Amino acid sequence: MEIDPLFILVLNLLGTFVFGLSGGLAAVRANLDLFGVLVLAAVVALAGGIARDVLIGTPPATFRDWRYLAAVTAAGLVCFFAGHVLERVESSVTVFDALGLGLFAVTGASKALQFGLGPAQAIILGAVTGIGGGMLRDVLLREVPAVLREGLYAVPALLGAAVPVVAHRAGSSSAVFAVAGAVVCIVVRLVGWKYQVNAPTPKRR
Amino acid sequence: MEIDPLFILVLNLLGTFVFGLSGGLAAVRANLDLFGVLVLAAVVALAGGIARDVLIGTPPATFRDWRYLAAVTAAGLVCFFAGHVLERVESSVTVFDALGLGLFAVTGASKALQFGLGPAQAIILGAVTGIGGGMLRDVLLREVPAVLREGLYAVPALLGAAVPVVAHRAGSSSAVFAVAGAVVCIVVRLVGWKYQVNAPTPKRR
Amino acid sequence: MEIDPLFILVLNLLGTFVFGLSGGLAAVRANLDLFGVLVLAAVVALAGGIARDVLIGTPPATFRDWRYLAAVTAAGLVCFFAGHVLERVESSVTVFDALGLGLFAVTGASKALQFGLGPAQAIILGAVTGIGGGMLRDVLLREVPAVLREGLYAVPALLGAAVPVVAHRAGSSSAVFAVAGAVVCIVVRLVGWKYQVNAPTPKRR
Repeated sequence: MEIDPLFILVLNLLGTFVFGLSGGLAAVRANLDLFGVLVLAAVVALAGGIARDVLIGTPPATFRDWRYLAAVTAAGLVCFFAGHVLERVESSVTVFDALGLGLFAVTGASKALQFGLGPAQAIILGAVTGIGGGMLRDVLLREVPAVLREGLYAVPALLGAAVPVVAHRAGSSSAVFAVAGAVVCIVVRLVGWKYQVNAPTPKRR
Repeated sequence: MEIDPLFILVLNLLGTFVFGLSGGLAAVRANLDLFGVLVLAAVVALAGGIARDVLIGTPPATFRDWRYLAAVTAAGLVCFFAGHVLERVESSVTVFDALGLGLFAVTGASKALQFGLGPAQAIILGAVTGIGGGMLRDVLLREVPAVLREGLYAVPALLGAAVPVVAHRAGSSSAVFAVAGAVVCIVVRLVGWKYQVNAPTPKRR
Repeated sequence: MEIDPLFILVLNLLGTFVFGLSGGLAAVRANLDLFGVLVLAAVVALAGGIARDVLIGTPPATFRDWRYLAAVTAAGLVCFFAGHVLERVESSVTVFDALGLGLFAVTGASKALQFGLGPAQAIILGAVTGIGGGMLRDVLLREVPAVLREGLYAVPALLGAAVPVVAHRAGSSSAVFAVAGAVVCIVVRLVGWKYQVNAPTPKRR
């Protein structure tokens, strides 16, 4: 039994929209113009899902579906016209990024299960789906990606993806676990970021 | 009815060659050596087509076909041996990039139609095909990609791709519309770049 | 007749492990924390094989197989706990990168032959498999990739990949040629790097 596909679609569209906001706001901050904002919103919002589908070995669905393209365009336009308002919210790029991370981690893991991947692979694929967009955003704006710099970035994505995967192994595909996974990821990510929880660094010479 | 495949192949090879020149000249300017020039020419020339085929969900054709590899190698060698001549032409990287943008936008859109994608997707896929190589060139040389910085970059690619797609919807697959689309894209891109036409930037705090 | 798949698997796992060391040590040097080290080790170790499989048009195998994930995790943990020891070895990132380059060049070329690609394509695909991980490592840490900067990087990868391909054309799929190809690649790369063998640079204005 699988999670209701319509529910996954809604989470995916939401994730696409908030990742689009994260990319679009980063573009506003980097003083890009209207099309730079739209392109960066699109790249950030679609990259994770495209990587997920390429790794599964199925044609990228987000790319063919007009609803994702609409969500991306909406996010880009919101950033262009209301970016100066959203910017006032401190660290809005990070917050929207965290929301997208949680939503994509669970939908990525669910899609991997649906295509028959094992539990470890499904958890990793969920994390890749969540991490991909932000990584590309940072590379395109010439920053070292947050996933490499910040202690609690990959971990919440893996944790969030693990919730629906473990539930699935236990026989339940209730949508509750997808929501719970997303919430776990978002909370861990934002708490870790707020309180600067750092992972240990290796000993140096 | 589809555009003559041989004609599309010719446009694709031309696009590969001029994108190869754009990548190779950027490598010459960055003081890379022979192999750096050849590798950057290859990466820039093949990236757009590979992204296109991955997004469609078909094995990357440009990669398997020796004619594309020959076009790429030729472009790299031209840049190595005659780069100091081509460099004298002001902004030659941008000009070759614009030519490739137009050629790849229409061939990418045509291939998407051929694989049954809808018109909006075909236009976006055409733009991705045109934009991909230059974006990767800039990332590898540590610049913010032109598509994010410059107003008229994504727009001409979308416009150029739209011409054959609209014609196809109207029932005509004449090669004339492919050429017209490429010309529209190249002209809009170069005029916008020459006169520094900028898209509006978002309001800041 | 093909090279023993088990032998190719062993070479691939070894290549994954040493590329993981190269990525993990680069992360240690960039002062990343535990998760940064693990993520960069994983990205560098898996990128080449994923690119290879995407270009062939088959679902990325390295991603689905727990043995690769185990090799990557082991490499990341070694770098985290023993990175300060490995770092004392001068240029250890480059040395592990060279080992991975040789191993992946021959396994990439062998996999391409197995999927029926022609000899030129198999050699190039082998080189792409070897080069991909290091290129991504450098981009993520904001350096111009070594393959663009250093004369003898693409060449040893192409040479190493060519050995099993030529042997295959001559009718032999003995594992000896895979090992020989890897050794050729590693030796040429390290000798060229040690003695700063540079390819010619293009004439400038």
